Amino acid sequence: LVSRMRRFGTTIFAEMSALAVRTGSINLGQGFPDTDGPASMLDRAVEAIRSGVNQYPPGPGLPQLRQAVSEHRRLHYGLDYDPDGEVLVTVGATEAIAATVLALCEQGDEVIAFEPYYDSYAASIALAGARLAAVTLRPKEGRFTFDPDELRAAVTPRTRAILVNSPHNPTGTVFTREELAVIAEVCQERDLIAITDEVYEHLTFDGVAHVPLATLPGMRERTVMISSAGKTFSVTGWKTGWVCAPPELTRAAQTVKQFLTFTVGGPWQLAVAHGLREELGWVAELRAALQSKRDRLMSGLSGAGFEVLKPSGTYFVQTDIRPLGFTDGLELTRRLPELAGVVAIPTQVFYDHPERGRHFVRFAFCKKDEVIDEAVTRLKRLG
Amino acid sequence: LVSRMRRFGTTIFAEMSALAVRTGSINLGQGFPDTDGPASMLDRAVEAIRSGVNQYPPGPGLPQLRQAVSEHRRLHYGLDYDPDGEVLVTVGATEAIAATVLALCEQGDEVIAFEPYYDSYAASIALAGARLAAVTLRPKEGRFTFDPDELRAAVTPRTRAILVNSPHNPTGTVFTREELAVIAEVCQERDLIAITDEVYEHLTFDGVAHVPLATLPGMRERTVMISSAGKTFSVTGWKTGWVCAPPELTRAAQTVKQFLTFTVGGPWQLAVAHGLREELGWVAELRAALQSKRDRLMSGLSGAGFEVLKPSGTYFVQTDIRPLGFTDGLELTRRLPELAGVVAIPTQVFYDHPERGRHFVRFAFCKKDEVIDEAVTRLKRLG
Ligand SMILES: CSCCC(=O)C(=O)O
Ligand SMILES: CSCCC(=O)C(=O)O
Repeated sequence: LVSRMRRFGTTIFAEMSALAVRTGSINLGQGFPDTDGPASMLDRAVEAIRSGVNQYPPGPGLPQLRQAVSEHRRLHYGLDYDPDGEVLVTVGATEAIAATVLALCEQGDEVIAFEPYYDSYAASIALAGARLAAVTLRPKEGRFTFDPDELRAAVTPRTRAILVNSPHNPTGTVFTREELAVIAEVCQERDLIAITDEVYEHLTFDGVAHVPLATLPGMRERTVMISSAGKTFSVTGWKTGWVCAPPELTRAAQTVKQFLTFTVGGPWQLAVAHGLREELGWVAELRAALQSKRDRLMSGLSGAGFEVLKPSGTYFVQTDIRPLGFTDGLELTRRLPELAGVVAIPTQVFYDHPERGRHFVRFAFCKKDEVIDEAVTRLKRLG
Repeated sequence: LVSRMRRFGTTIFAEMSALAVRTGSINLGQGFPDTDGPASMLDRAVEAIRSGVNQYPPGPGLPQLRQAVSEHRRLHYGLDYDPDGEVLVTVGATEAIAATVLALCEQGDEVIAFEPYYDSYAASIALAGARLAAVTLRPKEGRFTFDPDELRAAVTPRTRAILVNSPHNPTGTVFTREELAVIAEVCQERDLIAITDEVYEHLTFDGVAHVPLATLPGMRERTVMISSAGKTFSVTGWKTGWVCAPPELTRAAQTVKQFLTFTVGGPWQLAVAHGLREELGWVAELRAALQSKRDRLMSGLSGAGFEVLKPSGTYFVQTDIRPLGFTDGLELTRRLPELAGVVAIPTQVFYDHPERGRHFVRFAFCKKDEVIDEAVTRLKRLG
């Protein structure tokens, strides 16, 4: 393994999901739902397989999906992206991020990301030979946020881009317009590109709306807006995502993307195009269901003795484990199968400063109510 | 776009397929069949979607597919790979190659490949900040082969790996045991890793058998053996491939792969596992059909005035265009839609020394007989 990748082992998600399987634990670690997406979407995928959409789709994606993504961006956010040249279909947001970072970052460049951060960010940046500069999100009045001065101080002459994930995994923060305005200002003052990971765009709660950074003045032209179908439609295994960006940035991402995987399965693309057009009502129900699952898990975890931080979006709640007498989340999550038959994610692995997240553990609530209830019952053994 | 990628534009395959669509030409460019894979495989994919295999599969791939790949390697080649730790499922061979090269090549390392080479090789090597050293395949007694001394001379102290593609795209050469022995000797003498792209392993003709480099003495331990389902089962759009290699090399590729795409669609994986177990009879019929399509296209192209080089494998024939009075294949293929309503691939784009391939044009024969016949009829207008 090359030196620049040596500090990366198996992703925590694979490690913890394997642990869940091995120990027969309830998996509240890796974020994937235990129910399927809309029936009509599955039907479309089946139809596509049956009707011979099984050969290479065009590299940038099928026109149907690029069109549907473009319409979705216009209808939901008032953002105009030309399906020809400003939309690129990718193997999930993961590939979109890897391709974008590899396309934009020279050896020695710096990319800012908010820690705790989704682990592929650091890996993509390392693959490019670039450096990640972490700005820490800290709990303040019950939600994770950043200090604008810390963000400004993180910018150097080598900074190329800011990676912005909102709704934010793993903290559940949905950046406010004010927070986004700070980021936008920094991007414009320092001539940075924004790479946004918005895969939880539809999964927000309590009436909080997701605001794409690209909708802020001056930002569309410098933003690579990334999303995917996995979370919106509960088809995480389909690995179908997209980039929306000005032509030059889209072309750059595509140049790399075509050599990472060439293209994405046609049946998924047609099914997702259908979903974006016809199944946003289903998504609204999913959002409502997830909000009640969030509340269910939060009250259960509180009852089990965790301090719980309320998320405004995503699949996840953060807990502080100290009230239970634990101090190290990595240690606790490795023992959790044996202690309670539950798997969770130690938040500290997503920090460049692990000590800042040592006492946080992430639990997923994108699960059937009875699964959440059983997990809570088991976790009460910890107290 | 970063400097190391600036010489890469849109892949020739995307460019030429788009040209075919735009001009309504017959597409004998990009290699994909115009008929589907085995019905039972499509059934399995459908069943998987219907039975809820729509969330993240494990990062290294579903155990069913890893097991099937391992069995296939044992039955066909007598090669033993442990499904746990020596098999990794990827988004097609393209991702397998990108992940392997990015995992193994430091900045400044060199990788040898035989030109003309599949274009993603150069891109993956450039992404890693490494250098491609091309050893030229030249026609000799009707097939493309290399000069062993040229291969030996290409090795430097910075050489890390040799990329070996057999059956070879775009020349159709299937390396003989003697040619492979030369490569094996160089790998062992100079302590190099072999990365093999064997996606056409089942598509060989005239009784020529594909020999995996890993079966040669001393090679299994230093070979990353790559293949995929797309060509074997006529499902090029499913993008499901795999790496077989010793544990340390598999782990290295996986470390990178997990951050490029994380995982591969579960339905494809289950369907391909079924195909590898149950549908190799179908593949034998495909091979026979392709051989007759090869002969059909070869005789048609000869009749149209091309000099044709007979391939022993793959989807492709190489032609020399000089007998028709043309000298530049890139120029000709760009005009071919207008001249003849056909799209083909200019072989020269796969060379570091384009002048060595200027007069070669590649045609694909993985098409219905009537499509081949119509293309030939049109190409006769050139004469
Ligand atoms: C790609 S696996 C991770 C799924 C996910 O987004 C999470 O659990 O954070
Ligand atoms: C990934 S597109 C290329 C298909 C193919 O292998 C070829 O045409 O050479």
